[in-house]
Formats: sequence, structure tokens, C-alpha cells
Amino acid sequence: MKLPKPISNLIDYFERLPGIGPKTAQRLTFSLLNFPQEELERFSDSLVELKKGTKLCKVCKNVTENDICSVCDDPIRDKRTIAVVSSPLDSFALEKTNYKGVYHVLHGIIDPLNNIGPDEIFVKELIDRIEGLVNESSFDNLDDQLGIEIILATNTSMEGESTAMYISKLILESDFDKSKMKITRIARGLPVGGDIEYADDITLTRALEGRSGL
Amino acid sequence: MKLPKPISNLIDYFERLPGIGPKTAQRLTFSLLNFPQEELERFSDSLVELKKGTKLCKVCKNVTENDICSVCDDPIRDKRTIAVVSSPLDSFALEKTNYKGVYHVLHGIIDPLNNIGPDEIFVKELIDRIEGLVNESSFDNLDDQLGIEIILATNTSMEGESTAMYISKLILESDFDKSKMKITRIARGLPVGGDIEYADDITLTRALEGRSGL
Repeated sequence: MKLPKPISNLIDYFERLPGIGPKTAQRLTFSLLNFPQEELERFSDSLVELKKGTKLCKVCKNVTENDICSVCDDPIRDKRTIAVVSSPLDSFALEKTNYKGVYHVLHGIIDPLNNIGPDEIFVKELIDRIEGLVNESSFDNLDDQLGIEIILATNTSMEGESTAMYISKLILESDFDKSKMKITRIARGLPVGGDIEYADDITLTRALEGRSGL
Repeated sequence: MKLPKPISNLIDYFERLPGIGPKTAQRLTFSLLNFPQEELERFSDSLVELKKGTKLCKVCKNVTENDICSVCDDPIRDKRTIAVVSSPLDSFALEKTNYKGVYHVLHGIIDPLNNIGPDEIFVKELIDRIEGLVNESSFDNLDDQLGIEIILATNTSMEGESTAMYISKLILESDFDKSKMKITRIARGLPVGGDIEYADDITLTRALEGRSGL
């Protein structure tokens, strides 16, 4: 039995999405056969519009409909605290906490095995942005007291750690004034609700190193 | 932070697909942001073409590009052995065995809790098709010797079992000659590689009932 071309075409596209295997791609495609044609057309339109209707925020590179994203545009957010994340999804995850700073989206992670170097992601833009912030501060003494904090919030995977280290080194080697600047890394430790018994050695080591006073 | 409309639109569509939760829908949508626009447009076209480019086989109701599907059109396949399945995906699964009969796709399963009765699926078409086969046979004595077999290959879930029972009853109550007809049900038992120790009572009962000589 040969699958009709319109069906196998769609299966192929679904299979290229992350985490979608051949079986799931088939299931998704066949389920769409039960959708009314108008629904399929609207689904189809939203695929075409996805990139046409969005751009990257001029300040933080997050995806947005306008030139400046809603976070960078919000006067209440602390523009001197920048969480550096590798994808827009990570910033949406952090939005569920009570984080009140802003973001910088790298759109990737340094990963030499997959040929992704610092030039492929928005690292230079981050350095320029920090430099801009530092220069701005020197004219405004009151605000300056607050200092600048760069929170490196990349994944705690090997690639995430080395990207964080790379960026930290890059900032420290830059020419601008770093005296009022803090570079921090999100805590590595046991997830809330976690069992010490089942934690791996590295996580447990990090949890001990990162212990805090009660 | 508010998600840009083009992104939340697409997330909504992905979420309506079976087995896709909010997190997966987000992940899929954001991964598509990294696709070139032409790729998105081809993906989009294949969604619109999915139903436009396919129809239901006139004989077995499977999805096909032509009036008659490749299985029903194949002279080698045994037209007197019909596996009744609830979805095209089930027929593709059976194609991986050495099954050489044909199919009848119900496009659903009788499920009163979800308001799906026998009229919502292709049951009447199956009965008409069997009747056609029986009438055809009476003119052709040689072929007639072979008889007709209806294999009820719906899922072994509650709904699948009751659909199989319903169809079997409907065939037996029909007016046409059933003397040369066999109605069978796929075997219920332990999956190959299964552990008797971990099998549930009902499966084990079925496995015993369906035991065969060695």
C-alpha cells in the first residue's frame, strides 16, 4: 500500500519538527483529515504568518510583533537586570516566576559539535547592549548606584555552562567599566520536591557548593 | 509578557492535535521560527492540499488519491477477505504483516459517550459491500468455494469490542446468504515478548481462551 502523496508530504513536514517521530507524524496527519477544510486553511495561514508577522525586538532580540517587545517597553521592568537566555521559550518560562528584570535572547547556544560558534548567536549584540547601559549610567548618578546585573540563565547542560562561561569571560575582558556590574549564574541544585538519594553526583556537588544560610 | 499573536495562533492550532499539550505546542511553534519562510510556505501548502488531494476509495473508504485505492485495485489481493478497521492508520499497520486480503475502513468507532453511533461511521457501506460480494459469488461457482471472510480488526478496547460485536450481529441478521461466510475477530492475548507475570487478568483469560494446538 502506498500512502497518497498529499498525506506523505504532510507526514514528512511533521517529522522534521523536534520530538516528532514517524508514528506521531502519521497520527497528527491522519487526525487533520478529520478537520474541516476551512480549519486547515486557517492553520495553513498561521504557518505562513508566523515569521511574516513577527520580528526580533531591537533591544533584547526576543520575538515580538513590534520593534520593541512588551518587556523592554514596560517602564516598570528593571532595565539594569538582564537575564541572558538561549531561546524565547526560556524567557517565557522565567516570566512565570516573579522576575522583574529584562532579557537578552541569544537564539542558540555555543555548540562546536554542531558548528554553532559565538558569531551564530546574539553575543556581540549583548556586549554592545551592556556597553550602552554602562555609558548611559555614567551620566545618571542616582540610577548608577543600583549597578547592573547580568544573570546567565542558559541551560545547565554542558553547552549551556560553556556558553555562560564564554559570555562571562567576554564581559570581563571588555573595555567598559565593570566596577558596578555583577555577573551571576542561575543556581544549580536539587529541583524542588527532589530526592537527595536519587540525585546525581554533579547536581549534589553543586547543591552543596550553592548552599545558603537559613 | 504577551506572546505575539502570530505565535499564539499557531500554538493554538498545534494544541488541537491529538497528544499535543501546551508545552509541546510551544516547542513546535518556536522551532518553526527557525525554518526558512519557503519551507513554512510549503508546509502550509501541504496542509491545504491534504484533503483537497485525497478522497475516500469507492470500495473500501480508505484514503487515496484515485477513485479506487491501490489495495482494492491490486489483482493479487484476495477481495473475499475483508479486514474491518476503524482508521486508515490501522490498515497501514496491518500492511506491515503478510496480510493479503483487502480492507474496509469505518472511519471511527461506535462510542455512545462521544455521540458516535453506527450511522456516523461506514457500517452501512460495509453491509452493502458484503451483500454485493455474496450476490456476485452466486454467479461464479469456482470462486464461491473459497467463501468470504470478514475479519473484525477494530481495537481491543471496550469501544472496539462493542463495534466488532455490533457489526457481527448486523451481518448475521442480514438477508443475504451467510452459509459460506466466516466472521472472525483478531486474537486477544499476550503481545509477543510479553510476561505472563505482568499480564492483566482479562488479557490472560483471553490468551487462555484463544490457545491453539502446537
